[in-house]
Amino acid sequence: MSGARQYHEIPGSFEMRRGGVLERPVIAYETWGRLNAQRDNAVLIFTGLSPSAHASSSPADPTPGWWEESVGPSRPIDTRRWFVICVNSLGSCFGSTGPASIDPRTGQPYRLGFPVLTLEDVAVAGRRVLENLGIDVLHTLVGPSMGGMTALGYAAMFPGSARRLLLISCGARALPFAIAMRSLQREIIRRDPAWDEGRYDTATGPVAGMRMARKLGMITYRSAREWEQRFGRDRIPDERRNGDAFAPAFEIESYLEAHARKFTGQFDPNCYLYLSRASDLFDLAEHGGSVATVLAGVRAERALVIGVSTDILFPIHQQRELAAGLAAGAAEVEFEELASVQGHDSFLVDMDRFRPVIRRFFDRPALAPVRVGPWPVRDTVARRLP
Amino acid sequence: MSGARQYHEIPGSFEMRRGGVLERPVIAYETWGRLNAQRDNAVLIFTGLSPSAHASSSPADPTPGWWEESVGPSRPIDTRRWFVICVNSLGSCFGSTGPASIDPRTGQPYRLGFPVLTLEDVAVAGRRVLENLGIDVLHTLVGPSMGGMTALGYAAMFPGSARRLLLISCGARALPFAIAMRSLQREIIRRDPAWDEGRYDTATGPVAGMRMARKLGMITYRSAREWEQRFGRDRIPDERRNGDAFAPAFEIESYLEAHARKFTGQFDPNCYLYLSRASDLFDLAEHGGSVATVLAGVRAERALVIGVSTDILFPIHQQRELAAGLAAGAAEVEFEELASVQGHDSFLVDMDRFRPVIRRFFDRPALAPVRVGPWPVRDTVARRLP
Repeated sequence: MSGARQYHEIPGSFEMRRGGVLERPVIAYETWGRLNAQRDNAVLIFTGLSPSAHASSSPADPTPGWWEESVGPSRPIDTRRWFVICVNSLGSCFGSTGPASIDPRTGQPYRLGFPVLTLEDVAVAGRRVLENLGIDVLHTLVGPSMGGMTALGYAAMFPGSARRLLLISCGARALPFAIAMRSLQREIIRRDPAWDEGRYDTATGPVAGMRMARKLGMITYRSAREWEQRFGRDRIPDERRNGDAFAPAFEIESYLEAHARKFTGQFDPNCYLYLSRASDLFDLAEHGGSVATVLAGVRAERALVIGVSTDILFPIHQQRELAAGLAAGAAEVEFEELASVQGHDSFLVDMDRFRPVIRRFFDRPALAPVRVGPWPVRDTVARRLP
Repeated sequence: MSGARQYHEIPGSFEMRRGGVLERPVIAYETWGRLNAQRDNAVLIFTGLSPSAHASSSPADPTPGWWEESVGPSRPIDTRRWFVICVNSLGSCFGSTGPASIDPRTGQPYRLGFPVLTLEDVAVAGRRVLENLGIDVLHTLVGPSMGGMTALGYAAMFPGSARRLLLISCGARALPFAIAMRSLQREIIRRDPAWDEGRYDTATGPVAGMRMARKLGMITYRSAREWEQRFGRDRIPDERRNGDAFAPAFEIESYLEAHARKFTGQFDPNCYLYLSRASDLFDLAEHGGSVATVLAGVRAERALVIGVSTDILFPIHQQRELAAGLAAGAAEVEFEELASVQGHDSFLVDMDRFRPVIRRFFDRPALAPVRVGPWPVRDTVARRLP
């Protein structure tokens, strides 16, 4: 399953942004294609909260990746041309060091002894992988969802290190609706008695809490309109309801249950807590006074910002803000608002809309004309959130 | 506190829509103003999920009611002119019979022995209160939120029994996003070990589950934009965080916590489960083949449908559907889409927008000209949900 997975052990002590260190943390990653002699064809992908580094299949691991239709030979991110790297986030549980890993200083899992994780830590860890591969400047830095915020942190901390930016369904910082939704997910997990202050047995753990948290996550990842179209008020047949009057009665409930059960067996609860909180904590303004200032200072030659009109987790005005801010810094910026009905997750499922937009961005030669902003940014954002 | 509360004991066996009976159930209600000699100035208000019958203050109970600014002398629903009745829903816990009440057949609380509750049962129980007061035809039937669906059920079951309808922030049936949100609230309560299959001690009970469920409820009752304006990324001062790294860090989390704590001590968990499920089960189409058919058959002379553009629980297309459907039945129908930022709860808080609209509807004489539909109904709704 993970025959394509590689590991980089970061030597020495890795200092975390909010304090604490990790000794020799490991970052899992996968690559596709070949780095050219000029070392100028590298594309780095940071992921959303839950994926591994396995973005796409390869001979070493033929199982489909989480972004299979976007990455591969002759696909929008064409691995015959680009050397593509995808890292498993620091703090995650698919090969990279995280709360579920063994702390080399104690021989025990970190659990809640893991230092506070930020997306900047995830970005710096990704940078260390690139350095080890001999890559200084990326051709394109790609980030959907949480990975988009990670990419913004990377661009802010290492200006000039990415010639192009592809930011998808993300924002310059977490807004209160998203914070509320994630905070409640974490509370649900922590209130499960089986969580036991993070000391659960890995074989069991807070299964019920994780299932409910994932359901709430799914509610933020999709859209009301999609569910009206897919499920309406379709009922679960009575014979599947076991006579429990409070058991799920509608297909939408059954859909959420199936998704949640699948996720619960895969993801470590403490890792989920740390990554979830890292998204809440992220605020690009910390890198230079205001979001606008930081975006204007990102020295990328070109950027594409994609948003989806039905996204409730990162609403479209957040992508407008990114595009306008990057355009103010004189980068050539394109902004695409897609009418996908699947909400925040559209970049994973509405490939017919996403593929051509991504392909066009990667295929365009260096100096072709592009559409440039400004786009309107909602007043409330500009006023309240410097 | 409840000196204004009156009770009507419904004689004999009350048959529930989905099976089961209640023996001599009691409905708590309050009234304001006086019924005139013609008995044609009665206004009935059905409530949302959580309020009591105490819609407004009165000499017998001077505490502010849940809709204080809308109901009272010289207020939009002017109690010098109208005889206003507000009922506590059957199944609730503020004086009406519900799962927390004593079953006269056993001498024990009903708990999960309470029969499945529907909003039609709530409507019929309200009808029995009116009959007891000698009222056959209402001047106006009013329902916000869940109360709006109850009012629609009432209008469908007793055609011609309400001359006017005021429907606020409701819909003809629950759609899957709302079902998902409520279903998860119920699951969170039922997963709290203190719920104990409904046998909790009333003094303790599933406090943590209720708190988290209420937070999720609040997320559906307000709007992302309101929170961006009110809270942005405002932080809780460190001294209030007790050194717990996973404690709430943002003011939005503190706001939800405060609301949830206030609610938890007031509302019985089993009653919450029953009323929440009743909202999911409601579908006006059950009263005549399709929503459109039923709405066209409601013999009201006039209707006002109010919706709010930021409502995610009952999105605005649901109110458009109601207005269009009632207009097809030749009633004079007004539709008001208000730009309130507070989402579903706007009818409780954005009184500057709601008061004049409600006042105009109640003040208009019988034959003044009104705006009549049709308004566009979104294709997906028309297609998927007959």
